[in-house]
Amino acid sequence: VNLDGMRPSELIARKREGGELTGEQLEAMVTGMLEGHVSEAQMAALLMAGVINGFTTREATALTRILWRSGESLDLSSLSGPTLDKHSTGGVGDGTTLIVAPLVAAAGGQMVKLSGRGLGHTGGTLDKLESIPGFTVELPPARMLAIAEQVGCVVAAQTDRLVPADRELYALRDLTATVDSPALIASSVMSKKLASGASTIVLDVKTGDGAFMRDAGDAEALARLCVELGQDAGRRCAALVTDMDQPLGRGIGNALEVAEAVELLGQPPRGRLATVALELAAVAMFEAGARTATGGRDVTEVRDDLRRRWEAGEALERLERMIAAQGGDPRVCSDPAGVLPAAGVTRDVLATVKGRVRAVPAREIGEIVARLGAGRARKGDDVDPAVGVRLEVEVGDDLSVGQRVAVVSARTAADAEAAVHAVAAAIEFGDDVPERDVIISRVLLG
Amino acid sequence: VNLDGMRPSELIARKREGGELTGEQLEAMVTGMLEGHVSEAQMAALLMAGVINGFTTREATALTRILWRSGESLDLSSLSGPTLDKHSTGGVGDGTTLIVAPLVAAAGGQMVKLSGRGLGHTGGTLDKLESIPGFTVELPPARMLAIAEQVGCVVAAQTDRLVPADRELYALRDLTATVDSPALIASSVMSKKLASGASTIVLDVKTGDGAFMRDAGDAEALARLCVELGQDAGRRCAALVTDMDQPLGRGIGNALEVAEAVELLGQPPRGRLATVALELAAVAMFEAGARTATGGRDVTEVRDDLRRRWEAGEALERLERMIAAQGGDPRVCSDPAGVLPAAGVTRDVLATVKGRVRAVPAREIGEIVARLGAGRARKGDDVDPAVGVRLEVEVGDDLSVGQRVAVVSARTAADAEAAVHAVAAAIEFGDDVPERDVIISRVLLG
Repeated sequence: VNLDGMRPSELIARKREGGELTGEQLEAMVTGMLEGHVSEAQMAALLMAGVINGFTTREATALTRILWRSGESLDLSSLSGPTLDKHSTGGVGDGTTLIVAPLVAAAGGQMVKLSGRGLGHTGGTLDKLESIPGFTVELPPARMLAIAEQVGCVVAAQTDRLVPADRELYALRDLTATVDSPALIASSVMSKKLASGASTIVLDVKTGDGAFMRDAGDAEALARLCVELGQDAGRRCAALVTDMDQPLGRGIGNALEVAEAVELLGQPPRGRLATVALELAAVAMFEAGARTATGGRDVTEVRDDLRRRWEAGEALERLERMIAAQGGDPRVCSDPAGVLPAAGVTRDVLATVKGRVRAVPAREIGEIVARLGAGRARKGDDVDPAVGVRLEVEVGDDLSVGQRVAVVSARTAADAEAAVHAVAAAIEFGDDVPERDVIISRVLLG
Repeated sequence: VNLDGMRPSELIARKREGGELTGEQLEAMVTGMLEGHVSEAQMAALLMAGVINGFTTREATALTRILWRSGESLDLSSLSGPTLDKHSTGGVGDGTTLIVAPLVAAAGGQMVKLSGRGLGHTGGTLDKLESIPGFTVELPPARMLAIAEQVGCVVAAQTDRLVPADRELYALRDLTATVDSPALIASSVMSKKLASGASTIVLDVKTGDGAFMRDAGDAEALARLCVELGQDAGRRCAALVTDMDQPLGRGIGNALEVAEAVELLGQPPRGRLATVALELAAVAMFEAGARTATGGRDVTEVRDDLRRRWEAGEALERLERMIAAQGGDPRVCSDPAGVLPAAGVTRDVLATVKGRVRAVPAREIGEIVARLGAGRARKGDDVDPAVGVRLEVEVGDDLSVGQRVAVVSARTAADAEAAVHAVAAAIEFGDDVPERDVIISRVLLG
C-alpha cells in the first residue's frame, strides 16, 4: 500500500518520532483500515504512538472530519427552531439529559439527542428512559424529526449508519489501551455530534473521581479541544467542566434517575444536578441565540428565562409529551412511583458515626449500583431498571449517628445487604471538606 | 483472556504509562499472540509503547528467554571443541563470517553458524556463499554437527523450527514501525544465538552511516545489553562496536566478497576487514579459552596465535574444507576468478578531481550494489551472485585525477553506467577526514 506517497510503516514511524501527519495521511490510514489494506496492528501502533506523543489540534480536526464523514449524517434542516445538542463525557447519577432536553424544548429549542447505553460504572440515558414502561428509543429518522418538531425534544438510539469508522476505531482502542488521548476522545465525541446535525452543541466534561478525566486541568483542555473542533466545523459550541467527585444527582440507577428528574422538574431548580442541567441549557440557548433573533441577551437573562419556565412546569410538561410521543407512559411525570418499576427489596443505610461527610466517591457508588444489576460489565448485557441507590447526603453534610444516608433498592436481601455495607464503607468522614463548586469552569470560545 | 490476573489491555496500559511488565506477563502476551487470543493489534500497541517508553533490562531478559524457548534449540553438546558463534548487526562489505569461521576452526574452535539472507542495502552470508557453484546452505542438523566436528566450521540456513516467536514478532514489528528498540533488537538477536547452542558468542555491532545504529553510543549500549543477555543465560559473551561509516571490505556484492575473503586469507591480515575479523576471532577464542584448558592467556597472545595460523594458510585451508563439505567447488580458494561467476559488464570508476577522500558512504554504496541486482527489496527476491562494486580507495586516501577508485560489475552496460555515476557521486572529498578506528570499542563484561 502507498498512502500519500508513504507506506503505513513510514507514517507510523513519523508519529513514533513525534511528528505530525497530514489529514490526507490520517484519512488514508483510517480508510485503509476500514478497507482492509492497513492492518489493525498498524492502526494500533499509530494510535499508541499518538497517545504517548500526542496528536496535534490539526490532526484532531482531520480525524474528526474523517470519522464524521465515514457515514451518514442526520439532516435537521427541515426543523423550524434552533437545533441544539448536548453531550456528557459520562458520570454517576448524571441525569442531565432528562432535564436539559425538555427545558430547551420549553424555551423554543429543538433537541434531537442520540444517546448510548451505559457501560461500567456510568449510566446511559437510553437505559434510564427505557425504565419507563412502553418507552422506545429505536426510532426512524423521520419519526425523530417529527417528534422534535412537535414536542421540541426526542432521545433516541444512535443508528449504525452514523460514524461507522468511529465505532471500529473505538473497538480497537478499547482492546489496545489507546482510549486515553484527548485528541482521540475529542474527535470521537465531536464526530458523533457533527453527524447528529445540530447547529449548537454544548458539552459537559466531567472531572474527578467518577469521571474519565480525574484532573480538572485535563478536563478543561479536553473541553477546549472539543469546542475548537465544533467551531472549526461551523457549529456553535460551548462546554462546561463539572464536578464528578461525588455523584451528580441523588438517585443512581435507571428508574431512580427518571424519578429524580421528574421530582426536580416539579420544583424550583436547586441542588447539584439541577444547577448543572440549568446551566447546560442556558449556555446552549445562549450560544444558539447569540446569532439568532433572540441574540444580544447575556447568559444571565437566558438562564432567568429558563428558570421561570422550569418553575412554571413547562419543562416537566415537555418531558411528559416527549415520553408520550416515544410510547412511554406519560403518567410517570405525575406519579413516578405508580408507574416506574420498584425493586423487590429496599434497605436503609444508616450513619454509624457522627461527623461531616468529606467524600461520597462517585466511582465506587457507581460500581455498587452496577453490581446491583443496573450496569453492564459488557456490551449487550441486560440491565435491571429498578435497582440502585438513592443518596440522602452529600459532601459537607453533618450527620448524626443513626441518620439515614441512603436507601438501597435491590433484587434480593443478600444483594441489598452487600450494597448497604459497601455504601456505608464508601462514604468518608472528616473535617477537611474540599471546597468545590459543581460547575468548575466554562469554555465559551469565539 | 486473563493474563497473570490482568487483561491484555491492562498490561498494555501499564507499558503505556512507562511501567514494567513481569516475565510471566510478557510471556502471556507473546504466547497469547501465537495462540490467537491476544490480537496482533494488542501486541503492536504493547510494542509501540515499549519502543517509545523503553523496555527495562529485566524485560529484555524475559523476552529473550521467551523467544528462545518458543522453538527448538541446536544441541552442540556432542561436539568436542569449544563451540563459538558470532553475529553481526549487518553492514556493507561485511564478509567477516567468511574469515572468522575458518580462522577459529583453525585454532581448535567449532563454529556452527546459522545465518540469514540479505535485505535492503546489507548483504547476507548465505547469499555470498551461494555464489560458489554447488555450495548448499540447507543442511539437516546432524550434517551441520558432522561438518563442525570434522572441519571446525559450517555456515547454514537457520531452520524454521528455531525461534518461531521471533519470526512472528519481527514480521509484526516490520509492519508497525516497532523495530527501533534496543531491547527488542537485542532480544531478537540473542534469542537466535541462544537457540543456536554455542557456549561462546561474539557480537559485531556496527555503527555509522551504513549501520542500523548510526550513533556509536547507541551501538555500544546495544552491545552491552546483548552481552548481558548472553551472560544471563550462562553463555560467554563479548562484543565489538565497529565502524560502518564506510564499507568494511572492498568487495561489495556476493561473489566479490567471497573473492576478497579468499584473497585476504592468502596474505597476512591487513586492512579494515581483516582487522575486524581477526579481532572478532581473537575475542571469541579468548572468551572461550578463559574458562578452559587454554585459559590464562591474554587477548594479545590469542590474537598472535590466530595471526600465525592465518599467515600459515591454516584458515584458508579450513575455508576450502568447509566449502567442499558443503558441496561447493573448493578450487574457489586457489582460483576464485576461475570458479566464481563473473558479471557480463565491468566498468572502471575514475577520479575526476584531485583530493583526499573524506567519505565513502556505506549505505549509498550498499544501495547501489543492491540496485545492480545483488540485494533484495523484498524477502524471497532472487539475487545476482556476480554483480557488485569493488572499491579501490578508502577514507583518507589521496587521489589524483584519472585514478581508478572502483570497478563496477553489472549485468548490462546501462546498469554499469548508472552505477559508475552513482559511485563517483557518492564518494566525498575534503581535508576534514574524520579520525575513526575501525574498531571503536570492546564490550567484555564479567
